[in-house]
Order: sequence, then C-alpha cells, then structure tokens
Amino acid sequence: MAPPWDEARAAAAALDAADPLAHVRDRFVHPDGVYLDGNSLGLLPRAVVPRMRTAVEEEWGRGLIGSWNTAGWASLPTRVGDRLARLLGAPAGSVVAGDSTSVHLFNALVAAARLRPGRTALVTDVANFPTDGYVAASVARLLGLDLVLVDPSDPLALARELDEHLAVLTLSHVDYRTGMLHDMAAITAQAHAAGGVVVWDVAHSVGALPVDLVEADADLAVGCTYKYLCGGPGAPAFAFVHPRWGDVADPPLTGWWGHEDPFALEPGYRPAPGAARLRVGSPPVLSMIALDSALDVFDDVDMRLVRAKSLALTDLVVDLVDRYVPDVEVVVPREHERRGSQVCLRHPDAYPVVQALIDRGVVGDFREPDLARFGFTPLTLRHVDVVDAVATLDDVLRTDAWRVPRYSRRSSVT
Amino acid sequence: MAPPWDEARAAAAALDAADPLAHVRDRFVHPDGVYLDGNSLGLLPRAVVPRMRTAVEEEWGRGLIGSWNTAGWASLPTRVGDRLARLLGAPAGSVVAGDSTSVHLFNALVAAARLRPGRTALVTDVANFPTDGYVAASVARLLGLDLVLVDPSDPLALARELDEHLAVLTLSHVDYRTGMLHDMAAITAQAHAAGGVVVWDVAHSVGALPVDLVEADADLAVGCTYKYLCGGPGAPAFAFVHPRWGDVADPPLTGWWGHEDPFALEPGYRPAPGAARLRVGSPPVLSMIALDSALDVFDDVDMRLVRAKSLALTDLVVDLVDRYVPDVEVVVPREHERRGSQVCLRHPDAYPVVQALIDRGVVGDFREPDLARFGFTPLTLRHVDVVDAVATLDDVLRTDAWRVPRYSRRSSVT
Repeated sequence: MAPPWDEARAAAAALDAADPLAHVRDRFVHPDGVYLDGNSLGLLPRAVVPRMRTAVEEEWGRGLIGSWNTAGWASLPTRVGDRLARLLGAPAGSVVAGDSTSVHLFNALVAAARLRPGRTALVTDVANFPTDGYVAASVARLLGLDLVLVDPSDPLALARELDEHLAVLTLSHVDYRTGMLHDMAAITAQAHAAGGVVVWDVAHSVGALPVDLVEADADLAVGCTYKYLCGGPGAPAFAFVHPRWGDVADPPLTGWWGHEDPFALEPGYRPAPGAARLRVGSPPVLSMIALDSALDVFDDVDMRLVRAKSLALTDLVVDLVDRYVPDVEVVVPREHERRGSQVCLRHPDAYPVVQALIDRGVVGDFREPDLARFGFTPLTLRHVDVVDAVATLDDVLRTDAWRVPRYSRRSSVT
Repeated sequence: MAPPWDEARAAAAALDAADPLAHVRDRFVHPDGVYLDGNSLGLLPRAVVPRMRTAVEEEWGRGLIGSWNTAGWASLPTRVGDRLARLLGAPAGSVVAGDSTSVHLFNALVAAARLRPGRTALVTDVANFPTDGYVAASVARLLGLDLVLVDPSDPLALARELDEHLAVLTLSHVDYRTGMLHDMAAITAQAHAAGGVVVWDVAHSVGALPVDLVEADADLAVGCTYKYLCGGPGAPAFAFVHPRWGDVADPPLTGWWGHEDPFALEPGYRPAPGAARLRVGSPPVLSMIALDSALDVFDDVDMRLVRAKSLALTDLVVDLVDRYVPDVEVVVPREHERRGSQVCLRHPDAYPVVQALIDRGVVGDFREPDLARFGFTPLTLRHVDVVDAVATLDDVLRTDAWRVPRYSRRSSVT
C-alpha cells in the first residue's frame, strides 16, 4: 500500500498558507519540478534579468570607461561586501567580494598565519570540502607549517589538536556532504584559548541561517554566493576580516585593488584599511552586478524566519523518510543545532537513484560514496515541494525505476 | 590660421575606404564621439547582448545546475583559454582564463620561482604597472627572494641584472604608460642565457598586435581581456604556461578547479595536465560568457592586418601632432618595433586637457604626472577618428578650453 501522500500534501499546503516567507518565492524564476540543488546553484532572481540588460547595454555599451564611476562599478567589491556583512553578523567595512572562494581562502589563511608568527600548526577538517583542504595544504607548505587534520565533530579529538603550536584553525561551518552544522562560537573560543586564530568557510551556511561572525569572534572568514544567496553561476565569493585585524592583516595577494588608493598607481603598496585590503585585481563586473542585484531579495528578509523555515522543511523530509521510505538512511543530524539546510540520505545505489530522481524533475546531487544530497533553500521552496520530492523518491525505490543502464556512473558538479 | 583639418580628414577617409578591417567595426556598439580608451575598456561587441540574455534567462534561469554540463560552463576556463591561445601564439592546452591578472600573476610567479630552486633574484621593471610590482614584491617576500628593479628599455642595465642569481624575470610586453613595446624574444633569450625563467604580462599587447609566446620562448605569461579583446568590464584574465612546463609547474593556488578531476572531490590534490592546473576556483560564469562571446569578433581576423592598422593609426596621430600641435610632446617611440598600440602625449597640464577632451567626446586618460594616454584599437577606430581627435585636441589647446575650474584634479580608472 502506498504511503498517504495526499494527506501529507494537504498538511504541507496548510503550512505553506501560513508561511511568512511565502511571498518571497515570487521573486525567483522557477524551473519545472522540485529543485533541491539550491545549495549548489541558487535560482535566478527575476530582478537580475533587467539589471543585467542595463549593465551590458547601457553601462558597458554606452557608459564604457566612465561607468567605473557613474555606474558604481569601482565600489562593487566593498558595496556588495557591506550588503553581505548584514547577513554575516559583521560590520560595514569588514567584508569584500570579488574573487573565488579558493582565492579568498588562500589569501585569508596566509594573512591568518602571519598573525601568529613562530607557531607551527595549521589545523583543518579531515573531511573538509576538497578545495579548502588543498588550499590549506598549499599554505602550510608555502609557510613551512605542519598541516594537521582533525574531525571537528569529535570535540575530544579537536581539543587534542588545539595546543600551544596552533597558528590557524580553518573549518567549514556546515559539512558540505553530511549537512552537519558546527558550533562556530564554541570552537572559535577553544582555538582562541590555545592562542590560535580561526578562519571559517561559511559557503554552506550564509543565506540559509543566521551567521554571526562577530558574535562568534571569528578572525577571518570566506564564503561563496552562488548557493543560498542565488548570486549566479560561479558568482564572486567574499572574505571577512574581524575589525580588530582590519589594519593589521597582511595578505599575500597584493593586487592594486587592495591598495589604499588603487588609481593613484603608486609604485609602493599601501594596504587599504579594513577588508578593502582583501580585494586583489579588477572584479568581474558583470558577475558582480548579478550578485548585487540578487542580494536585493534579502533586503527585507528576517534570517530568523529563514532558519525556522529551513528547519521545518528538513524536519518534514526527515519525518517523511523515517516513516515511509525505509530503504534509505537519514544522515543529517536530528538535533536542530547541528543541522545545516540540507539533508543527506544514504543508499547503496545513491548514484542511479539520484539520476532517476533528476529524470523525474527532482534535482539533487550525488556525493561519494553512497550519499544523495538535497538542499533546502527556504526562500524558494514550499512544504508541498518536500512532500512531492519524498513521494517521488518513494516511487523510484518502490518501482525499481533507478535500475536502468542509462543511470550508470558519471561525474557531477557541486 | 587653423591647420588644414578638412584636407587631413579627406586623406583619412580614403585610407578608411581601403581598410581591409573596416567591416569589423560594425560588430561593435559605438558610443558618440571618439573613444580612445579601448586600452582601458574595449567596446561592447553586439553579439554579446543576445548571448548574455541567453546565459541569464535560459542557462541560469532554466538550466540551473545542469548548465555546467549542457551549456558548457565547466569547460569555459580551458575552452576560452584555447581561443586566446591562437591570439598568443600558443598551442591548445597551454592557456586558461578565469581569475584577475593579479591573481594569475601571483600564481605564475610562485610557480616560476619553484622552477629555479636555490636562485635568489626576482627581477622586474622599475616602472611596471603597479599591480605587477606589488605582486612581485609580495612573492619575493613570501619566498625569501631579492626583488631587483630594472629599466628594461636600457639593455645594458638589464644585462647587468641577469646573472647567475636570476630565478625569475617578469616584465610587461608594453609599458602601460609610455606605450613602449619590449622585444620579448631577445629579452627572454637574455634571461634564459643567465639560467632564469621569464613571466610576461601581455595585458597591453594581446589583441592589438600578434603576440607569439612560444616563438619568443616565454616560460609563463598572464594578461587581461578587457582592453583590446573587448571582453567586458573586469573580464577574467588568463595565464599561459609553456608546454615544456605544463606537467612540471607547481602553482600555489591549488583550488579544486586546478585538480585533474575536480568533481571527483578527492581528498588529495593532483594537478591537471598543462595550463588547466592554473585554474583555481569556480570561474565567474557570466563574465566568462561575455568574454567567450567577445572572442567571436577575432575568429576571422588576421592579427598582422590588425598590427598594420594599429601602426597606421598611431603613425597618423604622431604625424598630425608633430605638424600641427606643437604644445604637446609625443612620448611613444617613433620606431614601429618599439611601439605598442597607444600614444602618450606630454603636456604640463595633461590632467585638465584630458578632462576637456572627454567633455568634447574624445575619451582618453591621464597618467601621472603629465601624460595624456590614448589607446588605438584597430578593430573599432577609423583614420578619420584620429583626425577628429587631434583636431579637437588642437582646438582645446588653441582656445585654452582646458583652463576652467571644473577640469581640476580627481582620480581615474585604468
């Protein structure tokens, strides 16, 4: 007997009718089906379409070089940074946008290590997102530090590595595979007690839940904007530096845009005050403008409501899977305080299952070795979408629809 | 008596009528007036307008995450790199695009220095574009090298610094202020004879003249695409690595996109073969697509014709200024083989003169302390535009039109 999906859908529809964020959904272009990959690439905000036309046809086409001033291109890195700062619990002047997360992270890690000369350990998550691990290893090698890998979900293991050798601890706020949310304030305090500095990667939390970098006393942070912030494909990432380090931090990527007066074209480098020194070269203006426009969506949005809806959506999927889809295991933590905005389900044939779901309009992604990952973007999804997604999953498993050759192995994109 | 501008214009019109590149001009959106700042930001190619609409509305809006594969986003860094390679005299697989020039240069300089362990000197141009100098200084500090500043236009001074200590020589192909073109092959050979490697910045030559990196035996190179290549504001820059170093180069920016199999998300870093290892993080897709589309303009263009027209345009401006505008001094070299595609004029009040010209639709830029800089983009300018620009300059000087308070000092953008 099939599960009572009609009942579940009716209950979900009632929740949607009472959703204080329901109206925000209309600000996006929606694909057919249920898109649960907003944690890889967020939906297109409608307002971006005319904004990009203006940027290309008027600002570039007509304004040309003058648009650096008249259209505000020159202030994009700091202006977009200030808009992001509100979503990061950070003051104006402490965030800039412009390069990729990998580039910002490299710059932040070297700057962080330079705050702790003489210390020898660069500590990171053994299961960190690969680019974070690769960049940490490169920085350790360049500066002659010891790279130490830990499991941040194990407090005792973490405590053992945070000692008098600690220069820098760098972690992701949310584990990109399992969706586990780490306690930023507690871990930062632990690292500070050992005398180190902390660099957080908030790529998988910003825009999905309230992030409070200053409250958590983070030293530096980076994050990406193409996931929950809907900034567009490969949208420029950002970097944060705590105000206490704003005039002290000494980043290695000393491009002219990090200079106090870039257009004076002085022979000697003088870093700009605050996060502005984390700018590097000319920002990719068209991509920056799409991001700037996308952030309009968040202007009147209360991130506490976003978090509440995120948890309601992931609670619902966990509840429905627990009750009606016994063949998969819920991997995301049950406790709210340890959960990001995604749900991972374990199934031995997760890859073909994800492909069969995509073919039926339910878009998630596969993560090695046996995880199906679904992101729940609170501004674009409804509770009924969750029911539809789980009902489709149930149908795919119940009918063995994933057991066909065309769902066999290939790579995917985060 | 005013100079014979009508005669000059008639002669110029005859040259335009015989110009084999005249038809290419129609591929661009043209502003009113005479835009001589294409060496700062190139004109908008018409085809970019519909291409960007498709990218935003269809590929992002409808295709979403699937567009990384179906719309070819994932291959943009190498695919655009291969298109640039043709303009750089480089083979497929030796060029990638994606980050800013500053970021690519940092990565290239560290990779270059690692090819010469034990050597101690990083040599660069004392008058290099500031970001190149800042980045070279940062790399020297990070790796414990001595930063040595030379004047590359003085062969004896250069020869003195290229000795057994040389690890890396890094220079700009064209001086961003004076427009002087350096002999890439001869200088590279000199540095190789001393046992060093060479990193060229071709930001001010690519797209304006044939660049032949392999013929000149350059080891690595970087350059920007928002000038003569018309890739858009802050368009992604590129990096080249000679095939002999493609599987040896060891860049420090080990983002996941430089990995041999980025989407396998492996814990350990394995660099991709060739220039693909110079990719770092997710590329700014919207800006990359504008650049990709802009490069269509060059597909059927013979760069030797471009160079011939560039020299004809700059010869004409030099000739007209010499003959009719005695108050300014031509700074760009007279010899063709030492001239890029720009003309610098010296005037003690260059700043207000440039402002007065801009107000009259002749857009150039000012460079400290007394230079008016005009770029001549051969694909978008006519010979009559040159006459109009010089006639306007003559009028501004003859009538003292620049001596008004509103043309007083402010900063400008390169």
